[in-house]
Amino acid sequence: MSVSRLFIETDLAAGVEAPLGEAQAHYLRHVMRREEGARLLLFNGRDGEWTATLSLRGKKTAAALVETQTRVQAAEPDLWLCFAPIKRTRIDLVAEKATELGVALLQPVLTRHTAVERVNVERLRANAVEAAEQTERLTVPEVRAPIELGHLLDRWPAGRRLLMCDETGGGRPIADVLSTLDPAARSAPWAIVIGPEGGFAAAELEALRRMKEVTSVGLGPRILRADTAALAALACWQAMLGDWRTPTPRLPGDYRTSRATR
Amino acid sequence: MSVSRLFIETDLAAGVEAPLGEAQAHYLRHVMRREEGARLLLFNGRDGEWTATLSLRGKKTAAALVETQTRVQAAEPDLWLCFAPIKRTRIDLVAEKATELGVALLQPVLTRHTAVERVNVERLRANAVEAAEQTERLTVPEVRAPIELGHLLDRWPAGRRLLMCDETGGGRPIADVLSTLDPAARSAPWAIVIGPEGGFAAAELEALRRMKEVTSVGLGPRILRADTAALAALACWQAMLGDWRTPTPRLPGDYRTSRATR
Repeated sequence: MSVSRLFIETDLAAGVEAPLGEAQAHYLRHVMRREEGARLLLFNGRDGEWTATLSLRGKKTAAALVETQTRVQAAEPDLWLCFAPIKRTRIDLVAEKATELGVALLQPVLTRHTAVERVNVERLRANAVEAAEQTERLTVPEVRAPIELGHLLDRWPAGRRLLMCDETGGGRPIADVLSTLDPAARSAPWAIVIGPEGGFAAAELEALRRMKEVTSVGLGPRILRADTAALAALACWQAMLGDWRTPTPRLPGDYRTSRATR
Repeated sequence: MSVSRLFIETDLAAGVEAPLGEAQAHYLRHVMRREEGARLLLFNGRDGEWTATLSLRGKKTAAALVETQTRVQAAEPDLWLCFAPIKRTRIDLVAEKATELGVALLQPVLTRHTAVERVNVERLRANAVEAAEQTERLTVPEVRAPIELGHLLDRWPAGRRLLMCDETGGGRPIADVLSTLDPAARSAPWAIVIGPEGGFAAAELEALRRMKEVTSVGLGPRILRADTAALAALACWQAMLGDWRTPTPRLPGDYRTSRATR
């Protein structure tokens, strides 16, 4: 039987008895049909990954008895995704895929032409947690509350570069841009910014282009939906600047275990 | 009002009266509420893109009166996507996103660990047509019937390179591989091959690695779902070898028209 992998908030160390949330207890007991003593893998975003065994308590509670560390916490690329909210299934997709693609932070951004104003931050976070659990990540990206584009740019953190996917065709090809950055830019923290389906307003485009941190890139001759543009830009960034640049040997056994948990 | 953009099979030339299918007539009349004389854009994958006006006929039929050409047909990258079928919503997503990302052909592949054996080819094609209509493509990718991996490899076309996303960690980083290809490989036709959620069987991996056309690449330290791996590899290929390498100026008006049709 495959091993369930769970994100929890508790500190992890050998011998710790980590309480599981009600939803996690329900999931393990009733969805996965795990029994007392079942094998678990736990991570909290700080202490790496640990084996544990399931301890079933009352009807609705459970705990995990933490045993040994299987992976140490490692540094991850400092990449944000700033995106205009889109309709529900597509925004779920962005949270899930961006987590798999290794973003550190998801920032919904309200723009002039943003069609969707309400964002369920808890739902986005749940999608991010699930994607992290299922794809071997050791962290869960932070999900921030929506913010107006103007406010975001006004308080933009010094030194964080901004890759703007320019759907008006004004950007240089993304591979050109990313392969010719100077060393300071290559090692800087980055953000990718994606406009709404209706495009950025002219004033928004100007405000973005005025910022010295902004680099406009083009993503080819076809119009991409906002979610596709986000995922494509994340993949290119990880491949050319991020942690896809180093080979990552993996045991076939590791792979199959994790894939089988889906 | 935005302009509806439709894929049709008929040859396109000035003065042609192109019959529309029943589903298209229904869509224009009842979903989009178009009236007699409404502006259309048409493409057929061969003759570029044309303006046309809608001519409503009987209750269920309609035609388009073709007027002037707006874009000429252009060559597109010769890139296939060979992927093991996955469950319904995710396979729909692959067809849609792969179309946006410019694949020429979608080839479902049955492998030892493929969980999903039935593939609705018509449904995949409908997703591809819709994505092409909405994202300014001038072609619709071909969707082939599912084929066993062994059969696909036995009759693999001479000269077509195969980029294998190696989820066992055995591949070199994708950006390394794509940036160091020799000129012949850069200009060759390519295919991207993605295994099933359960991974390729050992014998399948060996068969793939034995082929001289195959290059294994890695997509970073996180486990990617099969659909994410497909979209990430397509984006990297287009950015580094495909038609994202040339700048594509686009009029803001073009962009807004097309985005507003969604």
